[in-house]
Amino acid sequence: MPNKAFQDTATEAQSCQSICVQSIQYCLQMGGSHVEPSHMQLLQDCAEICETTGTMLLRSSAQHNQVTAACASICELCARSCDRFAGDAQMKACADECRRCAAACQQVAQMRPGGAAGPAHHSVP
Amino acid sequence: MPNKAFQDTATEAQSCQSICVQSIQYCLQMGGSHVEPSHMQLLQDCAEICETTGTMLLRSSAQHNQVTAACASICELCARSCDRFAGDAQMKACADECRRCAAACQQVAQMRPGGAAGPAHHSVP
Amino acid sequence: MPNKAFQDTATEAQSCQSICVQSIQYCLQMGGSHVEPSHMQLLQDCAEICETTGTMLLRSSAQHNQVTAACASICELCARSCDRFAGDAQMKACADECRRCAAACQQVAQMRPGGAAGPAHHSVP
Amino acid sequence: MPNKAFQDTATEAQSCQSICVQSIQYCLQMGGSHVEPSHMQLLQDCAEICETTGTMLLRSSAQHNQVTAACASICELCARSCDRFAGDAQMKACADECRRCAAACQQVAQMRPGGAAGPAHHSVP
Repeated sequence: MPNKAFQDTATEAQSCQSICVQSIQYCLQMGGSHVEPSHMQLLQDCAEICETTGTMLLRSSAQHNQVTAACASICELCARSCDRFAGDAQMKACADECRRCAAACQQVAQMRPGGAAGPAHHSVP
Repeated sequence: MPNKAFQDTATEAQSCQSICVQSIQYCLQMGGSHVEPSHMQLLQDCAEICETTGTMLLRSSAQHNQVTAACASICELCARSCDRFAGDAQMKACADECRRCAAACQQVAQMRPGGAAGPAHHSVP
Repeated sequence: MPNKAFQDTATEAQSCQSICVQSIQYCLQMGGSHVEPSHMQLLQDCAEICETTGTMLLRSSAQHNQVTAACASICELCARSCDRFAGDAQMKACADECRRCAAACQQVAQMRPGGAAGPAHHSVP
Repeated sequence: MPNKAFQDTATEAQSCQSICVQSIQYCLQMGGSHVEPSHMQLLQDCAEICETTGTMLLRSSAQHNQVTAACASICELCARSCDRFAGDAQMKACADECRRCAAACQQVAQMRPGGAAGPAHHSVP
């Protein structure tokens, strides 16, 4: 079983993937600025990197570090893109979940698979 | 937003994907009969069709019926494969989740996207 | 290694996934009727079921039948949705690839994993 | 349409995903040291990050840089893991494809979405 931080982040990544998938449909129904290509691209990218992050963490992958770091960055960019729709409850919920996932990913990106913090070997020497 | 039955089944599908991904790692660590190709193939297939089922339901896909039906079948086959490991808690938990997902999928496989039961249009005329 | 029919269909499924992913971006750039929710939903569903179909065939999955059948149906529906954009080269290319993939999937949906045609066991008894 | 470097790397990523998926089945059939958890984990991680990389490049994603960089690292680690099986043709073919994919990913990881080389904005400021 993955350790607790990995498990919790995998759960966050799944929630983030889910809300991004739902947000894509929501934006298509809204139309207008909601279907601007760069916004929709971020929602798609975020859903996919969250999916990969989730499964890597569930299998306690030894090489998760660069992927969780990339996931944190894309979640943050996606949150900022959602922020632009002031007063839109779906976009607000999506931004909030993206930020929770980004925070969780940033934390585990520093961890070794065993879960201890410390200098992670996240590049090929 | 997807209707409640779709949402609940998507959640079940994500849980089933998660436990299958974890079970693959568990089986690799156990070795022996746990890594028999047909068992491992079912765990992989189950994880993947659950992933696709989950995202299709989250976007209230009008063409979910054959996919949710296929997911129900594969989940049931995966559960039976896990059943063979009597007394193994991980395999028992995996089989139980697979059966919950199969039951949920079987139910929504009969539904139109709007969620009403009735003759679903699940093949191309 | 998967048999030739499985391998060829997996290649078709990857090509179909690719053109659907590209078509989603193309449609977002075009806007208007190209981003109609039902059309975009089909492109997304088609990309995802093709991805799952491709990997199941690459691992010569014994339980591919219902999934390849579902893939054939969704590819055909996606092709019809693309057909409506008369004179649009990207949509024409996407429809053509979807039909090639549907034909390939329909053929292997009748096959046992070993590749022989015959009554496939594609439902759980 | 994605530029040529993106398109070529997406094709490489799909080929790498395919051979990793096939290699997982091959290793399960071989058993013994082929199913060592860390080796199998790398093959799974490599298949998944290649899948995500492929679709991000096909949609000319503006935030591909960290993901393509991560993909390059994981492909290289997977190649090294395959190298250990001297005289094994499937593992050799897998290692070769992983290295082609790693090289392609490393190149595009330096590019902006438009394709120009230069300081890529691959982290959130």
